[in-house]
Amino acid sequence: VADDSAGSLLDPGSHRAVALTGDAALVAAMLRVEAAWMRVLADGGAAKPEHAALVASAADRWRPDHAGLARLAGLAEDTGNPVVALVAGLREEVGDPDAAALVHSGLTSQDVLDSALSLVARDALDRVVADLAACAERLAGLAREHRDTVMAGRTLTQHAVPVTFGLVAAQWLVGVLDAGHAARSAREALPVQCGGAAGTLSLAAEVLPDPLAAVRALAGQLGLAAPDLPWHTRRTPVTRVADACVGVTDALGPVAAEVALLSRPEVGELSGGAGGSSTMPHKQNPVLAVLVRSASLQAPLLAAQVHLAASQAVDQRPDGAWHAEWASYRRLLALTLTAAAQASAMLEGLQVHARVMGIRARSAAGDLLAERDGAGAVAPGADPGAYLGVAGSLVDAALARYERGVA
Amino acid sequence: VADDSAGSLLDPGSHRAVALTGDAALVAAMLRVEAAWMRVLADGGAAKPEHAALVASAADRWRPDHAGLARLAGLAEDTGNPVVALVAGLREEVGDPDAAALVHSGLTSQDVLDSALSLVARDALDRVVADLAACAERLAGLAREHRDTVMAGRTLTQHAVPVTFGLVAAQWLVGVLDAGHAARSAREALPVQCGGAAGTLSLAAEVLPDPLAAVRALAGQLGLAAPDLPWHTRRTPVTRVADACVGVTDALGPVAAEVALLSRPEVGELSGGAGGSSTMPHKQNPVLAVLVRSASLQAPLLAAQVHLAASQAVDQRPDGAWHAEWASYRRLLALTLTAAAQASAMLEGLQVHARVMGIRARSAAGDLLAERDGAGAVAPGADPGAYLGVAGSLVDAALARYERGVA
Amino acid sequence: VADDSAGSLLDPGSHRAVALTGDAALVAAMLRVEAAWMRVLADGGAAKPEHAALVASAADRWRPDHAGLARLAGLAEDTGNPVVALVAGLREEVGDPDAAALVHSGLTSQDVLDSALSLVARDALDRVVADLAACAERLAGLAREHRDTVMAGRTLTQHAVPVTFGLVAAQWLVGVLDAGHAARSAREALPVQCGGAAGTLSLAAEVLPDPLAAVRALAGQLGLAAPDLPWHTRRTPVTRVADACVGVTDALGPVAAEVALLSRPEVGELSGGAGGSSTMPHKQNPVLAVLVRSASLQAPLLAAQVHLAASQAVDQRPDGAWHAEWASYRRLLALTLTAAAQASAMLEGLQVHARVMGIRARSAAGDLLAERDGAGAVAPGADPGAYLGVAGSLVDAALARYERGVA
Amino acid sequence: VADDSAGSLLDPGSHRAVALTGDAALVAAMLRVEAAWMRVLADGGAAKPEHAALVASAADRWRPDHAGLARLAGLAEDTGNPVVALVAGLREEVGDPDAAALVHSGLTSQDVLDSALSLVARDALDRVVADLAACAERLAGLAREHRDTVMAGRTLTQHAVPVTFGLVAAQWLVGVLDAGHAARSAREALPVQCGGAAGTLSLAAEVLPDPLAAVRALAGQLGLAAPDLPWHTRRTPVTRVADACVGVTDALGPVAAEVALLSRPEVGELSGGAGGSSTMPHKQNPVLAVLVRSASLQAPLLAAQVHLAASQAVDQRPDGAWHAEWASYRRLLALTLTAAAQASAMLEGLQVHARVMGIRARSAAGDLLAERDGAGAVAPGADPGAYLGVAGSLVDAALARYERGVA
Repeated sequence: VADDSAGSLLDPGSHRAVALTGDAALVAAMLRVEAAWMRVLADGGAAKPEHAALVASAADRWRPDHAGLARLAGLAEDTGNPVVALVAGLREEVGDPDAAALVHSGLTSQDVLDSALSLVARDALDRVVADLAACAERLAGLAREHRDTVMAGRTLTQHAVPVTFGLVAAQWLVGVLDAGHAARSAREALPVQCGGAAGTLSLAAEVLPDPLAAVRALAGQLGLAAPDLPWHTRRTPVTRVADACVGVTDALGPVAAEVALLSRPEVGELSGGAGGSSTMPHKQNPVLAVLVRSASLQAPLLAAQVHLAASQAVDQRPDGAWHAEWASYRRLLALTLTAAAQASAMLEGLQVHARVMGIRARSAAGDLLAERDGAGAVAPGADPGAYLGVAGSLVDAALARYERGVA
Repeated sequence: VADDSAGSLLDPGSHRAVALTGDAALVAAMLRVEAAWMRVLADGGAAKPEHAALVASAADRWRPDHAGLARLAGLAEDTGNPVVALVAGLREEVGDPDAAALVHSGLTSQDVLDSALSLVARDALDRVVADLAACAERLAGLAREHRDTVMAGRTLTQHAVPVTFGLVAAQWLVGVLDAGHAARSAREALPVQCGGAAGTLSLAAEVLPDPLAAVRALAGQLGLAAPDLPWHTRRTPVTRVADACVGVTDALGPVAAEVALLSRPEVGELSGGAGGSSTMPHKQNPVLAVLVRSASLQAPLLAAQVHLAASQAVDQRPDGAWHAEWASYRRLLALTLTAAAQASAMLEGLQVHARVMGIRARSAAGDLLAERDGAGAVAPGADPGAYLGVAGSLVDAALARYERGVA
Repeated sequence: VADDSAGSLLDPGSHRAVALTGDAALVAAMLRVEAAWMRVLADGGAAKPEHAALVASAADRWRPDHAGLARLAGLAEDTGNPVVALVAGLREEVGDPDAAALVHSGLTSQDVLDSALSLVARDALDRVVADLAACAERLAGLAREHRDTVMAGRTLTQHAVPVTFGLVAAQWLVGVLDAGHAARSAREALPVQCGGAAGTLSLAAEVLPDPLAAVRALAGQLGLAAPDLPWHTRRTPVTRVADACVGVTDALGPVAAEVALLSRPEVGELSGGAGGSSTMPHKQNPVLAVLVRSASLQAPLLAAQVHLAASQAVDQRPDGAWHAEWASYRRLLALTLTAAAQASAMLEGLQVHARVMGIRARSAAGDLLAERDGAGAVAPGADPGAYLGVAGSLVDAALARYERGVA
Repeated sequence: VADDSAGSLLDPGSHRAVALTGDAALVAAMLRVEAAWMRVLADGGAAKPEHAALVASAADRWRPDHAGLARLAGLAEDTGNPVVALVAGLREEVGDPDAAALVHSGLTSQDVLDSALSLVARDALDRVVADLAACAERLAGLAREHRDTVMAGRTLTQHAVPVTFGLVAAQWLVGVLDAGHAARSAREALPVQCGGAAGTLSLAAEVLPDPLAAVRALAGQLGLAAPDLPWHTRRTPVTRVADACVGVTDALGPVAAEVALLSRPEVGELSGGAGGSSTMPHKQNPVLAVLVRSASLQAPLLAAQVHLAASQAVDQRPDGAWHAEWASYRRLLALTLTAAAQASAMLEGLQVHARVMGIRARSAAGDLLAERDGAGAVAPGADPGAYLGVAGSLVDAALARYERGVA
């Protein structure tokens, strides 16, 4: 579908995410939920198998083009969500009036949208996890290779004591491992939503012998977890993913900031990941670092939006708080996926100028060793590499954790 | 263009905004900036008039379709912004190599994107101002009509002293007037951006006799204000718009919350603006109020994002902070436009059940008059309409301000 | 200490938190860290035991009064953090120059402040967990008692299908259990910080045979976890706590919103937790619900601040991002503690008007049963209690989880 | 009062603000409001002049000490705001029962708290405006002095085209002037709040001949603006101040970021504003720049909180949204005041290393002039000072605006 390659002009890199998080993907996920539910109805004796097959086939077949998506988007305002128009469209696609009439039977809009967003989140997080794994592999390599590459430590912008680039990379590695772990956990916990009009499965219970078994069956068909209770107004499954996403950009933002900083011409200790300028063709801007930094400045507020929406729930479906969650949640997923991919590419192209690091460390030895020797008392030619504390052991600890993790 | 009708499935109502704020609109605005600049170059003797005409014609002609926009979006990652690819595309469209070579000459990407976003913001704010005017007219009518319609005042959820629905509407009116005033001011102040690579007009000054006059000419052609200095890293023009936008949803959010609350079946003092349900066809949900409330829960964080981006600027173009501004700024514009239109429609369809208000006020007289008479000392049949303080005068004051404003 | 009873006039309920999170508590925690480190130095042979004893005794003894805290706060600006002045004050209190000289030896300011905030967070989370347990007990009781208490379900402000108050309480219960679980996990993971000037333990490694064992010993003395690596610029331990805190207010906010809503005079299905008014002495405002709601509107932004600070780290200690974390982190802890305590008190005093619920459900049967019977087709006298779906089983599932949890 | 010197250990520099924004200042402001209102009652014939004098004297006299403030803070939870307990305390201080009984008569808590916060905001903004004026003076001096000091322009971390430090300072100057202008406007517009229980002046209208004249009189006595209507649920006066505050830190944040960046040892083009380290006594950290940067990372979220509270208002006094405004509003005022003072001190101590700037610009001429000459085509010894575009004119424009402003 043309739409799937879209992205947005103001979100550089978003083309990486759109096939998984765009409107077409969302529609496909919603259709998948409706089709799976029909199969559950059929398995429970509440629909004929051939009707379920008709719906499944229609749900597989119907992929609205750009204009079709636009029509659905426009209709979403009439009912406040995109599901009502989607169900109408699916019924039309099904054709057979008896099968069509059963589509969505027993569900509520929120069941479909929440479950579909769980599917979208799952696919996005899978990609995030894979890109973080690539980052981790590269960072482990850098930590290993530069375990003993001395460089100036910097605190509050000024030279502090010596560190190694290996330790810097090891710290990044641990951050990426933690973020990947949280992303995987959030992904595994993603549940189906299935509660009917007000979370009691009222209508489903009229036609199905065991509605809770039906929920489990739906979850099974979609590859999602089956929750103890519906979570229409208890948004932990969504906030957990949001926390995991911002955890990813929290981990990657400092990497990008450091890459950007150490790539400054006055520092010159790193380079790579560069892109061009519209007016100065010679310039090599650290574009990927810039974009990852930009993502890290945005994700905290997107996650806050998701939490805020969660915190203002009321009734059995809130009058605005649920709606305030959607756009930010999806954009957070897309931004995180994009940032992880960009970080992976950035690290792939990263060049470490160990010689520059060494020269600077030696020339700054007076400052780097002042903690040990006293300000002004550092001997000429003193070696910053002799004052690295436990830097090497810390690198080893990080690498050991990495090895355990991939074993 | 197909794209212009798009909207997003997760932003119900966004189809109202997309023609003004979508990628196609943004591309058209960027092309307009490039064409206007070529005319400025020609007027200043730095380009041939026929070359400017070729560029103007190409800029008018070239409207990338959905796939074309997607290609531009994908290329944006290479350079970190969408301008470089746009310039390449425009040059191709121009054809003539001499004319093409001059496109963008003396500008930097940020000049084009910032100016284009000023154009987009102007168009969006014009629509916002118009919808707020419609809201104000309706609210003035409600305030006038219900100047003396007594209803229960409510504080901290409990009945307080009596008020009138006219005063409630008058308060909404003043909020809308203030918001409209701020939106108009922000719109009037929207400036062109034109500083070249680092805000000194370095290249333009090589070919133009009076670069600052050229900036003024560019502003004139685009109908934007001419700034004293470039504002690449001083983002007041953008934050001012963001403040105006969140001011709009701050004003409309409480209106929507009150409409939603007073439309509850247990209250029943208002109704209207309803949409349907996917499972309960009888239900009349206050969909527009819900969506406006949702917008009011989101705008504060979008505006915060714009401020955050502004506050982290550094260098002559920051390494991520500028980029972190774009998507939230545009979505804030779109969301505000949508919310203003939805609020206008909501108010248009609003029905005031004055009789219910009156019945409740009388039946709650024991609480509504307790401030005056003492708890438990309110006489049976006491009239809440006799304890309205200066409610009527306050309505008159709001209406007088409204009348002055439209005179 | 006088300070410990303070709170803030603009944070009603903050007096509940101040003894654990106020400046006096923070100073005590920082002194505890310094004393514990001296003991570690002594155990490692880098200080005399009697010097460690002198420092321990001074750290136990010195509790700056209000003016003393103010003096420390004023001095914090000189160095950008409160530790340098604290160390000076502690050295003075120690008296003995040899012992005093060794105070803080091998640590950096961030080691002390981060570790102290871990101690503060631990104590605050312990209180949060206890109050959530009280909430859960009360909610389990309500869910059990009202398992079959029929009430109107409400979605998007309008009557939907019937639910039970037991199910409402069960949903709250699950939210509280999840929040409590996350709070406990975050509390258990709270680590000590100990890395020296730039995270290499440079100075400690000069005087201690096994610096990493020293970190573990420090952690053991303080009852905190020992991290694999220092986390000066990798703020997961802090963001994890922030996520847990906002998870608590996410869970409690909807409870408070529902209590406030159902306590409205027009609804009247709940009451309790009331406070007075300055002008209308008869009014019973649901003050505790109001304050918990207020907290739920604030916590998402406080947590976002903590994430934002984390995401902008750079160097081995960032130039502002670390500092931007402190105040919001502490206020988030205090606000969460306060909200949990207020929620517990609110639920304790909650009165459920089951009769009102029943009357309303029956009188609204035409709407509540329209999903089943069709709009307009509900028979007179139809019983909403006959259309509860699996509400009872869901209550049982929540209670079973509660029972397992406390077993 | 001891309390006034407090500040907070986690808000370095907050001691600068506490005398104006702390609890003691707030109590004094609330007492001032109550006393002024008594005078209004007396002038309107609703109270005896001697009673007003007794209240005025008590309000002048009563300054709760730290323990007294703590007691008030604790009581604030009972009623959800600090006013009820304050009124009780003031009545006690008044002594005379007839005078005491009239205290607060006709007001509601929100009248007192909102008006008091207007007074607090006014005093804080006065200080902000003064500090910004000092910043502007210093920046004008720097712009003038360094009008022709060539330095490397930097975009996206890389060298771009040459600029001057004068232009950098001129851009900062314009930002500060804009911020100061907005702060002054917000300060001038600060209104009194006076509407009684539900914004109708219900009780005041029973005892005063012209309640609206009384509001104007109250405003006059307090030196605040008189609003057309009460603004209990229309929070523009508060959000306008919040916008002005974040405008200040938006302007100062980039200054601090640039100072921190250019003070890095690898750059060395600026220095000053330094503070010490707890472990490396030789280090000179740019502490003031760090703290201003920290403030700029926090203010956007505090302002968002104020907007969010405004946007969620409902009823005649909302059930949590109003309360969610207070703490963030006050902290935003304090943080802005502190940041403005710190920025002024930072700029005062700033040292410009023009020689280093020049050396770097010349050595980087190959990059700085590549836009003009082509990459690789810059002649050896080429002068970056010959490619400054209109930098000088832009400095002059900024200075002209500054001169006009102070004339």
